[in-house]
Amino acid sequence: MIIIMRPDATAAQIGVVTDKLKKHGFGVHLSQGAERTVIGAIGDKSAIQLEALQMLPGVSEIVPIRKPYKLVSREFQKEDTIVALPGGVKIGAGEKLVIMAGPCSVEGEQAFLEAARAVKAAGANVLRGGAFKPRTSPYAFQGLGEKGLQIMAQAREETGLPFVTEVMDTRDVELVAKYADMLQIGARNMANFNLLREVGKTKKPILLKRGPGSTVQEWLMSAEYILSEGNKQVVLGERGIRTFETATRNTVDINAVPVVKKLTHLPIIVDPSHGTGEWDLVPAIARAGIAAGADGLMIEVHPKPDEAMSDGAQSLKPETFQELMVSLRGVARAVGRQL
Amino acid sequence: MIIIMRPDATAAQIGVVTDKLKKHGFGVHLSQGAERTVIGAIGDKSAIQLEALQMLPGVSEIVPIRKPYKLVSREFQKEDTIVALPGGVKIGAGEKLVIMAGPCSVEGEQAFLEAARAVKAAGANVLRGGAFKPRTSPYAFQGLGEKGLQIMAQAREETGLPFVTEVMDTRDVELVAKYADMLQIGARNMANFNLLREVGKTKKPILLKRGPGSTVQEWLMSAEYILSEGNKQVVLGERGIRTFETATRNTVDINAVPVVKKLTHLPIIVDPSHGTGEWDLVPAIARAGIAAGADGLMIEVHPKPDEAMSDGAQSLKPETFQELMVSLRGVARAVGRQL
Amino acid sequence: MIIIMRPDATAAQIGVVTDKLKKHGFGVHLSQGAERTVIGAIGDKSAIQLEALQMLPGVSEIVPIRKPYKLVSREFQKEDTIVALPGGVKIGAGEKLVIMAGPCSVEGEQAFLEAARAVKAAGANVLRGGAFKPRTSPYAFQGLGEKGLQIMAQAREETGLPFVTEVMDTRDVELVAKYADMLQIGARNMANFNLLREVGKTKKPILLKRGPGSTVQEWLMSAEYILSEGNKQVVLGERGIRTFETATRNTVDINAVPVVKKLTHLPIIVDPSHGTGEWDLVPAIARAGIAAGADGLMIEVHPKPDEAMSDGAQSLKPETFQELMVSLRGVARAVGRQL
Amino acid sequence: MIIIMRPDATAAQIGVVTDKLKKHGFGVHLSQGAERTVIGAIGDKSAIQLEALQMLPGVSEIVPIRKPYKLVSREFQKEDTIVALPGGVKIGAGEKLVIMAGPCSVEGEQAFLEAARAVKAAGANVLRGGAFKPRTSPYAFQGLGEKGLQIMAQAREETGLPFVTEVMDTRDVELVAKYADMLQIGARNMANFNLLREVGKTKKPILLKRGPGSTVQEWLMSAEYILSEGNKQVVLGERGIRTFETATRNTVDINAVPVVKKLTHLPIIVDPSHGTGEWDLVPAIARAGIAAGADGLMIEVHPKPDEAMSDGAQSLKPETFQELMVSLRGVARAVGRQL
Repeated sequence: MIIIMRPDATAAQIGVVTDKLKKHGFGVHLSQGAERTVIGAIGDKSAIQLEALQMLPGVSEIVPIRKPYKLVSREFQKEDTIVALPGGVKIGAGEKLVIMAGPCSVEGEQAFLEAARAVKAAGANVLRGGAFKPRTSPYAFQGLGEKGLQIMAQAREETGLPFVTEVMDTRDVELVAKYADMLQIGARNMANFNLLREVGKTKKPILLKRGPGSTVQEWLMSAEYILSEGNKQVVLGERGIRTFETATRNTVDINAVPVVKKLTHLPIIVDPSHGTGEWDLVPAIARAGIAAGADGLMIEVHPKPDEAMSDGAQSLKPETFQELMVSLRGVARAVGRQL
Repeated sequence: MIIIMRPDATAAQIGVVTDKLKKHGFGVHLSQGAERTVIGAIGDKSAIQLEALQMLPGVSEIVPIRKPYKLVSREFQKEDTIVALPGGVKIGAGEKLVIMAGPCSVEGEQAFLEAARAVKAAGANVLRGGAFKPRTSPYAFQGLGEKGLQIMAQAREETGLPFVTEVMDTRDVELVAKYADMLQIGARNMANFNLLREVGKTKKPILLKRGPGSTVQEWLMSAEYILSEGNKQVVLGERGIRTFETATRNTVDINAVPVVKKLTHLPIIVDPSHGTGEWDLVPAIARAGIAAGADGLMIEVHPKPDEAMSDGAQSLKPETFQELMVSLRGVARAVGRQL
Repeated sequence: MIIIMRPDATAAQIGVVTDKLKKHGFGVHLSQGAERTVIGAIGDKSAIQLEALQMLPGVSEIVPIRKPYKLVSREFQKEDTIVALPGGVKIGAGEKLVIMAGPCSVEGEQAFLEAARAVKAAGANVLRGGAFKPRTSPYAFQGLGEKGLQIMAQAREETGLPFVTEVMDTRDVELVAKYADMLQIGARNMANFNLLREVGKTKKPILLKRGPGSTVQEWLMSAEYILSEGNKQVVLGERGIRTFETATRNTVDINAVPVVKKLTHLPIIVDPSHGTGEWDLVPAIARAGIAAGADGLMIEVHPKPDEAMSDGAQSLKPETFQELMVSLRGVARAVGRQL
Repeated sequence: MIIIMRPDATAAQIGVVTDKLKKHGFGVHLSQGAERTVIGAIGDKSAIQLEALQMLPGVSEIVPIRKPYKLVSREFQKEDTIVALPGGVKIGAGEKLVIMAGPCSVEGEQAFLEAARAVKAAGANVLRGGAFKPRTSPYAFQGLGEKGLQIMAQAREETGLPFVTEVMDTRDVELVAKYADMLQIGARNMANFNLLREVGKTKKPILLKRGPGSTVQEWLMSAEYILSEGNKQVVLGERGIRTFETATRNTVDINAVPVVKKLTHLPIIVDPSHGTGEWDLVPAIARAGIAAGADGLMIEVHPKPDEAMSDGAQSLKPETFQELMVSLRGVARAVGRQL
């Protein structure tokens, strides 16, 4: 932590700051610049809220040196984490790309099985589907709950593909973990810290979606919650952030892909469906995600998008998904990966 | 719902859209413009996801007519809702302003009682304090839990002021409701829909903070979740949104105060502490909130901010809070309210 | 400037950085922390782009210590700047509040005179009107040009009120300065640095609107351009920033008012008309601006808003403006100011 | 234009709106919904500011039907525009990708020639360099002016590559056009409408960078300004928008690439250097831009980035640029393009 004093800070004010630092066990290092004094606080006391020093007279600014996350950082672990799912699916650098596909919601048995068969035929290696749906409106379809989980389990049985599905409530973690191969923390729950702790206690692989109003650093802090409970099987999911642009539902933060690769050893995938909100933009952004270095994609596919109970406008038809998979192979090859 | 067709839409494409609307029970109204056809869908079928029509060939855009919320809207209820707390506190238009004050976290019995006495002496009418704290870092102080609730109950006993405190987990709603006079849904949980439903089932007054990445409309939809469970005692809390500006922790959306007053009958308060993140900006923004028409304020006050376990940099000392209260009286009077 | 090295930086890498600093004439100060080395660069060489050091191996982060602006800073000048306009109008802390009012565009002689009389009668002390209009569409009304300036000069003649108007082009600065009492740099031109230099060369008071996508720091840097040319008569104008919120045209950054007061000695006014985009929100935000400590307001007033050639939806009718002026008096008094 | 009335609008209020529309020459089309009346205004009167109708009593919302731009729209021109530069460079769909490369600023003759040779050797087909630099600080290096233009002309002579450079001032358009093969409108000047008109009057190809706070629609409106002056040779440049994320200098709006391709016939390129602000993120985002469908890239390359007078931290060394070009070939091939 570095404390930058104001140019007009008095010796007494500098003394108050250094005394307080010493009292909390920090080493203190004074640097007298052309205009100001800069105080370095040396030590490892993340429990103390040094930010509050900002209100002491004469203090201009507090600059943290240390990153606030630890277990998720590249500095803590240099080698890439590989997240393993049943069925031999491995997610992470150097591995085959993971393509998670399926409808937004599980709407019924036949419809889901049809979708599952179609995405498998096109080459997806993980099924996705929602049983518990976080809907903006209390009056909208909220998902089939456990029945939805059972349908997905049945589709897994038939296709051999593992499935990922969202859990929204600490009370449902056990139930969802009983069925699912991977638990998704949705964007709206990225900072639901109790939920993060609960899924951290399971040993299930976790897909942690980025909150649309959250920085990369906050996202990594949320991952840190999961790892701090002993669960290291975390995949990050970029699904677009909220900006002033209204031409698309969200703005895919494509920069976040290489940024995340620098900062953490965890895998990252891109969700072009939520990231754009429009099916005809999905293929371009799916290709961009892979080209930027993502370890996979999550794509909404629905046999009849115009009759979907949620997110129809951003869902691909199975045939469009199949075409996309073909073009993705070339991009994957160009960046040294494969589908 | 209005469906705007593309200028080059064919008669057949228009036919597909109108057929689909009729099949779902809508009346259809065609309007042939200079360049395009516009289709009005008449009826009340919010369960159908008309947005998905956007993917039909020839469709340019879908424009919703109806607001997605109902119970919270001014159109549904013209007269202002007044939220009542024990101790005779009433929150809402026409009433005395509510001033909720206290430390960010309950850190211990003596410290909290000291803070409670100080804010009461200065004229606050509701205590605030955190027992369950949503912290970005898993390694930061997480609150005292039930012990914190007991301390606040004790302070209520002594001061006669009701208290508001955050609940973060569906599993804790019952516990927190046993102690608290008002349950706070924190900004990070604004779209934790299961939690909204749970607090909606209690009959406790709710303070619903706005998510920093959420629009006013989404905020009102979250309130709709609570009202749809039968709990109409909801106060909205503007606490700053996330923007590109880094000079302050958040950007208080002061526009939201009159916007909310137009759209809903629910009361609104402003939180200048989280809204700015810096104690010396708090008084100006507190005054601005009242001048803009807010029904009250929520302000962090700590006897020793530079030793606070959370949010010290944005907490007022009791004496600064007292000075602020004095200046607020004049502003309140100027807008026809009182402290 | 502080250079934070990576935990794994080698002695050789640290040596490269310190050598480069010394070569550029900086003093160097090493601080060895628990995990990392931090290098202080001591000296005053703002011409050197130390940011580029970030790409040297082993460097983690560069932290600037010095604020990038100088003449506009509070540290450079403690006492508040007072900007004087003809007619005895003074803008700045401690002075009577300035109320600039009038239609968005000058549309014709009679209409403007009518508006000018009305705003004077209500108590405005500066006229506003646009002769050169920056319009999003090339097909929209672009202003009357010099004819508009003449009409405003005529209104000044009749009412005795000075006027402010926008200049958009370096080639027009001389012309506009010939007529106007205060030159406005519009939000879209906040970073048009050549234009800033040109108006800096005039000795006219300048109203510098904040760019909707610009931080407070960038805004102050733009003011620095004007002051660096020798013109210290600059008033800052907060008119809303661009955020994800779509309920209003812009989001008034009310926090910026006290922030600016801390960082600079220049006066600041608030423009609730552009800041909200809706006339019925204007009064609340005007009051909030004054309550937050602004030195004045800029408000669009039009005799027939529903027939205005630009910005009708956000313009007050003269009678609404008059009512607003009454309520503003109370707020002004509460914060120790007067209208 | 569609006018949505409030549910409680009276017949008289509806009459006022329809009368006003008819008075302005619009056809009127009433649609009576379940709850509200919706009024369609039929006709082509973009000069009238229908938005101002919003303030009439009983009006809830105004929905524009028509896009505000015309000449740039896909609806106006279906086939892709190809922008031609000297030296046989063609920019646009179906053509070879354009790679514009070179240092941020022209700093001197030898340095620029060295950079020019290096980027040519690596396969760039257009040179870039700044002679007039829009710098945030008035004290920073502002470019060499005409001398810089001459150096770039000399580099063109030697390498045979055309060059693009920024023009910031209406007064400099003629001078810059005398030397440059393509004029760049920088991000800060995207809404400098007079400058847009001036470059529209030249017959030079224009590179129009997106303003960091501007929507795609506003960007297209700025292009419309240029086309409306008769210059159709416009290339759009996505260079990142401003968001809350601070991990990178800007956020590349990768979604904008396919969005722009849908809405307009103009070519689009991506600038990963400004888009990220960090050289080691540039390759990933360059690849993503091509994968998303961009027609080219603009990349900062500097022989000695750590000594650059501007933007060193985001500049590639020539050897890194060369490696990038190799990997780009594969991505280009995968999307049916070539370098």
